[in-house]
Amino acid sequence: MPLINSERLLSDLRHLRTIGAVGQGVVRPAFSAADMAARDWLRSRFEEAGLSTAMDGVGNVTGKSPNTGPAMLIGSHSDTQPTGGWLDGALGVIYGLEVARTLAEDSTTCHLAVDVVSLQDEESRFYGCLGSRSLCGLLPPDAISQAIDKDGVTLPDALREAGLENVPHEALDLSRYRGFLEAHIEQGPHLEAAGNRVGVVDSIVGLGGRRFRFIGEQNHAGTTMMSIRKDAATALFALAQGINDAFSALAGPRSVWTMGRVEVRPGAASIVPGYAELELQYRDPSMTMLDAFEAEVDRLVNEVRARDQATVEMSPSRERIAPVKMDETLRVHLGSAAQKHAPGQWVDMPSGAYHDAGVMAALLPTAMLFIPSIGGVSHDFSENSHDEDIVIGCQVLADATAAMLLDN
Amino acid sequence: MPLINSERLLSDLRHLRTIGAVGQGVVRPAFSAADMAARDWLRSRFEEAGLSTAMDGVGNVTGKSPNTGPAMLIGSHSDTQPTGGWLDGALGVIYGLEVARTLAEDSTTCHLAVDVVSLQDEESRFYGCLGSRSLCGLLPPDAISQAIDKDGVTLPDALREAGLENVPHEALDLSRYRGFLEAHIEQGPHLEAAGNRVGVVDSIVGLGGRRFRFIGEQNHAGTTMMSIRKDAATALFALAQGINDAFSALAGPRSVWTMGRVEVRPGAASIVPGYAELELQYRDPSMTMLDAFEAEVDRLVNEVRARDQATVEMSPSRERIAPVKMDETLRVHLGSAAQKHAPGQWVDMPSGAYHDAGVMAALLPTAMLFIPSIGGVSHDFSENSHDEDIVIGCQVLADATAAMLLDN
Repeated sequence: MPLINSERLLSDLRHLRTIGAVGQGVVRPAFSAADMAARDWLRSRFEEAGLSTAMDGVGNVTGKSPNTGPAMLIGSHSDTQPTGGWLDGALGVIYGLEVARTLAEDSTTCHLAVDVVSLQDEESRFYGCLGSRSLCGLLPPDAISQAIDKDGVTLPDALREAGLENVPHEALDLSRYRGFLEAHIEQGPHLEAAGNRVGVVDSIVGLGGRRFRFIGEQNHAGTTMMSIRKDAATALFALAQGINDAFSALAGPRSVWTMGRVEVRPGAASIVPGYAELELQYRDPSMTMLDAFEAEVDRLVNEVRARDQATVEMSPSRERIAPVKMDETLRVHLGSAAQKHAPGQWVDMPSGAYHDAGVMAALLPTAMLFIPSIGGVSHDFSENSHDEDIVIGCQVLADATAAMLLDN
Repeated sequence: MPLINSERLLSDLRHLRTIGAVGQGVVRPAFSAADMAARDWLRSRFEEAGLSTAMDGVGNVTGKSPNTGPAMLIGSHSDTQPTGGWLDGALGVIYGLEVARTLAEDSTTCHLAVDVVSLQDEESRFYGCLGSRSLCGLLPPDAISQAIDKDGVTLPDALREAGLENVPHEALDLSRYRGFLEAHIEQGPHLEAAGNRVGVVDSIVGLGGRRFRFIGEQNHAGTTMMSIRKDAATALFALAQGINDAFSALAGPRSVWTMGRVEVRPGAASIVPGYAELELQYRDPSMTMLDAFEAEVDRLVNEVRARDQATVEMSPSRERIAPVKMDETLRVHLGSAAQKHAPGQWVDMPSGAYHDAGVMAALLPTAMLFIPSIGGVSHDFSENSHDEDIVIGCQVLADATAAMLLDN
């Protein structure tokens, strides 16, 4: 199997890091000037690699091999969180480029077709996984016209600003592809903690969420007796603690849940809160567990409604995302390559975070590869991985891609 | 006993309401232009009633009877909440004026000494009960120089602006007074709910508070397994629910507690909260209950510290205020007068809110009288009472004042 050029790989990653760099991290939210500059630079690098390139009407940058298929599509996203790490997304895009170059340069693999993609707005500035959803035809009709970022910028305005207003949206050519591969930094501590160099993702966990509104009655904290209070915070505490107790009892080894958003109003020590909000998010690799969590939440909400004086309203806080299984054949190829380059130091594992691969899996056989994150850090300027792990991951991906395409 | 002039009483209350009026309510925070205008007007009304008047260096307006003591001091505060009701404080000041006038006009009581006072900043724009604390010599040394309102205005600047910079601070003449009487609208629903017209306060509840800070570790809500999380919100929910459970089990009939301030950061659905704050306030007429609440909080904090991953810090959120018993003799006089003017429609009751009377009680025999609040509304533009109840309350206070002073 051809060897990747580790110097070229690291040098491209480091160059991409300079676009939007802030300290150790990167600020390159979708459609920002830095994001568009990064996409222009990626496109030029794709071209230098002999790929035919395009940027479509939602900002996806593709580089297509001149070879006929079946092709492998490899990539991730080059947009970042508002304060992002340098590898999140970028790693998977540059891996795709390096694999395309490596296979094209070797006489045993130069006939294989590897296409590369940098998808747009995986990080939800406007609409999570905008690029992959658009490519797969999975965007709701009003998604683009209605999307707005947290500062009030609309997606149509951002597209106009980026010069993409009248550019066509690419649709995935299903006849061309054998599958989609996405490499990513783990965003968790498991690989590092166990001394592993590579993770082969077996599933992307599903997730759901609930938003609760508690409507009570604002009152004087000294003169309003407990028996007649309608305290929105009391109902919130009861529900939140109930959820923590019940989910702990139910949870599987990969279950996680979070109540990250809590608002209590008016928010003064001397005033009985008249209004509160709580947001719950839960993830699990199994649909059955997500169902069980939701049934438990329904039960607890009814319990709090029956006992507490405040009114409790519940609504889904987001579209539920079903757990996604990765393609078995692609996984086996990734595992074989991992075993060759990191013998005994790789593992099958679920992805706790969502990824474009979760979208692409609806249309194409899809698999993911993880490399370790130092300290498990994610969505933070300090996110990092060891160069050696970056190199091993790319070599595993190159080997597996060649093997899959040669398999056909 | 002499009868009050109800028309004059209501007319003075209504005139005071026009100073700083906003809709049905009043905006007259301490040292605002409206507050100072109200104090000037009060001073002129005190003078018209034959009292010798002064405004001292913290804004207290006093009107003293030309008669020698023993005197009764009657009053409350004319400053309001940022969005206050028209009777809160104002009622007790105008009652004092009307009682002084009524007794002065009657041949059987014109030799009695009734002084009137409008105390300053009971409502804590700068320093809660500033006026009564200053009058009683109970202000900490730096209180005035350090006090600052929520908009950053310092108390020394406000005093300069009000022209009070070099005005002496009055000290209570203990040799003159038989006691202090404060009338107030109830700020709660009890009198109205039970069909009572008058409440004779037996005690002002004490209160204490605790501020909790939860220091966890901010993390990705998808990839951070439950076992290694340090979730600040989880610890907050556990403590808050623990407090609600434990206090419910301990509480006496007049215990109240409130967790009105809750902050969870960074406050995003997809991020494990790294930091949270909670504020608890508890009130009870008995010191023993306040002690028991605090012991329970200590126990629960240690329980959460032992079980949860986040660090919990606790500190007092405010100076503890001890419960204050009202003077027995004054109460009996108020009760007799109430029984005469509202037979079977008055009640002994604690005050759940704090008042200047709580300060004055440290130096003088003190009692309080409540009149009903329509709907129990307090600290709101819509606060109100029925004219008939306003009149009855003042007559009860006049009768009781005469009886107490004739008693000597």
